[in-house]
Amino acid sequence: MRIPVPATPPAPPRPRALFAMGRRHRDALFPPAAVERLTRHVDLDPQLVVEDFDRIPGPASVELLITSWGCPPLDAAALARMPALKAVVHAAGSVKHHVTEACWERGLRVSTAAAANAVPVAEYTLAAVLFANKRVLEIADRYREHRTALDWSAHFPGFGNHRRTIGVVGASLVGRRVLELLRPFDFDVLVSDPHLDPADALALGARLTGLDELLAQCDVVSLHAPALPETHHLLDARRLALLRDGATLVNTARGSLVDTAALTAEARSGRLHAVLDVTEPEVLPADSPLYALPNVLLTPHIAGSLGNELLRITDSALDEVERYCAGREFAHPVSRAALAVSA
Amino acid sequence: MRIPVPATPPAPPRPRALFAMGRRHRDALFPPAAVERLTRHVDLDPQLVVEDFDRIPGPASVELLITSWGCPPLDAAALARMPALKAVVHAAGSVKHHVTEACWERGLRVSTAAAANAVPVAEYTLAAVLFANKRVLEIADRYREHRTALDWSAHFPGFGNHRRTIGVVGASLVGRRVLELLRPFDFDVLVSDPHLDPADALALGARLTGLDELLAQCDVVSLHAPALPETHHLLDARRLALLRDGATLVNTARGSLVDTAALTAEARSGRLHAVLDVTEPEVLPADSPLYALPNVLLTPHIAGSLGNELLRITDSALDEVERYCAGREFAHPVSRAALAVSA
Repeated sequence: MRIPVPATPPAPPRPRALFAMGRRHRDALFPPAAVERLTRHVDLDPQLVVEDFDRIPGPASVELLITSWGCPPLDAAALARMPALKAVVHAAGSVKHHVTEACWERGLRVSTAAAANAVPVAEYTLAAVLFANKRVLEIADRYREHRTALDWSAHFPGFGNHRRTIGVVGASLVGRRVLELLRPFDFDVLVSDPHLDPADALALGARLTGLDELLAQCDVVSLHAPALPETHHLLDARRLALLRDGATLVNTARGSLVDTAALTAEARSGRLHAVLDVTEPEVLPADSPLYALPNVLLTPHIAGSLGNELLRITDSALDEVERYCAGREFAHPVSRAALAVSA
Repeated sequence: MRIPVPATPPAPPRPRALFAMGRRHRDALFPPAAVERLTRHVDLDPQLVVEDFDRIPGPASVELLITSWGCPPLDAAALARMPALKAVVHAAGSVKHHVTEACWERGLRVSTAAAANAVPVAEYTLAAVLFANKRVLEIADRYREHRTALDWSAHFPGFGNHRRTIGVVGASLVGRRVLELLRPFDFDVLVSDPHLDPADALALGARLTGLDELLAQCDVVSLHAPALPETHHLLDARRLALLRDGATLVNTARGSLVDTAALTAEARSGRLHAVLDVTEPEVLPADSPLYALPNVLLTPHIAGSLGNELLRITDSALDEVERYCAGREFAHPVSRAALAVSA
C-alpha cells in the first residue's frame, strides 16, 4: 500500500533571462555564488553573454535582460527580436547608453544599480575633500622633496578642515550620498541644483544657492551633475574664475562638465587645486600639465565601483531580479522623465 | 536732590590668568577675538607669554594657566613660585610634557583640548582608510607614469571599500572618533584596547579582539594607542608579519609604536602598505626608503590641529575658562589616573 503524499504544485515557470554586457564585466559581477542565486529565480544560461543583439539564440522567449557596462543599445531592431521582453535590470549606473526611446515606447520596466554605484563615488569624494582642505598630498610632496619639517602653516595659511564651506553641484544620487557623508564634519554645505527647492536642500543638510554664488563661497566644490547638453562645460573659464583663490574643484562625475583648457590654466597658475577622476578627453593627452601639477590629484576614472565594490552592484541587481520574479515593483526603477535629467 | 540709584554690586574680581606656551602658538591660537572673549572672564595680559617659569612678573597672584605646545614643565620649583595657582587649561592635546606629579600633589585642576584635537586626526585617518582600500594614490602614480588607462582591477585585485575589515588599535579619544566616523561605511570594524570590555566595544560599533587577532584579520589597521613604555614598538617585526598581504598600516599616533626598520622592510618588499603621519625618528633620515615608496604615504605630523583647526582648540579652551570662572567643573578634565594610560 502506498501512502498518498500531497501533490507538490508545479513550480511556476521561471522567466527566461539573459546577460547582455561585456564578457569581462559578467565575469567580475557574477561569480558562481551570484549565478547560483540568480538561477534560483530565472532560467538563464550563465555562459551566454550577449554583446550583440543580432546574435541571440532563442531571442523570442527572453523576458528579462540583465545588463551592465558594454551592453549594446536596445534599439527598435533589437526589441523587435525580443517580443517577450518585459524588463531590464541594469547591473551598473547609468542606463543612458542602452535604454533607448524604443524601450520606453515598448513599456519596458527598467531598474538600475546607480544607488549602489553612487556609494564608492561619494566615498572617494569625501576622502578627496578631507585631504584637499588639509593639503595632505601637497605637504607629502614637499616633505618627500625637502625631507625636513617646514612651517606648513606658513606655506598653506588657513588650511584645515574646520569651518570650511563645501559646495555640492547636483543633488544626484551621488550628490545626495556626498551630502550625507559630509554631515559629521564641521562644514557649511551649499548645494546647487535646478531641480531642488530650498526645503529639499535643508532636508539634505545643505543650503540651496545658485551655481555662481556657490562657486564664489566654497573652499571645495564637488561636481555631481549629469552630462547633458545644458551641462556641457558647466564650469567654463568664467565660472572657474568665480572660485576663491586656493579653492579645490573635485570632479568625479563627467569630464565634459569642465572646460579642461580653462581648468588647466587655473591649476597651472597655482590659483586653483583640483581632484579629477574624470576628464575631457579621457585619457588626457600625454603632454597635459594636469598629470604632474602638485596641486592636482588625477586618477583614471576609478571613483566608481571597482574590485570588491562590484559586489555591491551585484547584490543590488540580484535583489531587483528577485523583486521582479516575485511580482513586486523595482526598488530602483528608472523612468523616462527621471532619465532625461539625470546621468 | 539726587535721585538714589541702586548700587551696582562690584564685579567679582576676575582670576588672574597667564599664557604659558610657545609665542607662535599663542599667536595662532589666540587671535584678537579670542583674547577679547578671554579677558571678559580673566585678568590677563595678552602680550605676556611665558616660556620660562623663572621669569613671570607677579607670579604670586596667578590662579589660572592657559597652556599649549611649548609650555615648560610645571615642576615643584615652578609651582612654588605660583602659590595661588589652582588650574591649568591646556589649549592642545596631551598634557604629559608639562603636567608633572607635583601638579597632582598640589591638587591642581587640569583641563585638556584633546577632544578637539582628536577631530582632525580622526578625519585624516578616515580619508587615509578610504584612499588606501581603493589604492587611489598608487593608481594616481601609475596613471601619471603610464598616461594611459590600465586594467586597475588586474593590478590591484579585490581592491575597494566594500566589506573591508578595519582595525582600530586603542579606544583613545582619537580612536573613538575614528570608530564614529567609520560607521557610515560598509566596513567590519575591530577594536583592540586592554582597557575596553566587549560591551563597550559594541557600543562603539566595533568588535573587541586581541591585538594579534586584529592584525591577522584586517585590511587596514590604524594606531590610536598612547606612547607608553608598554606600547614601545607595539608593532614589532613579529606583529607586522601577522598583517595580511596587501594590508595597510595607518599611524597618526606616535612613531614609537612601530618598529620603523621592520615596517620599512615590509613596505619595501611591497607586502604592506602604510600611511605614516608620525615616525621614529621624526623627521626620518633623508635616505629612508619610506619617502619614496609608491605604497607609502608619508606626511610630517600634520594630522593633528593645524591652520583653521587650531580655532577648534581655542574654542574648547575658552569654554573651559568660562566654566572655571563660573565655578563649574571642566567639561574635559584630566585626572592623574587617566593620564597614566593615555597619550
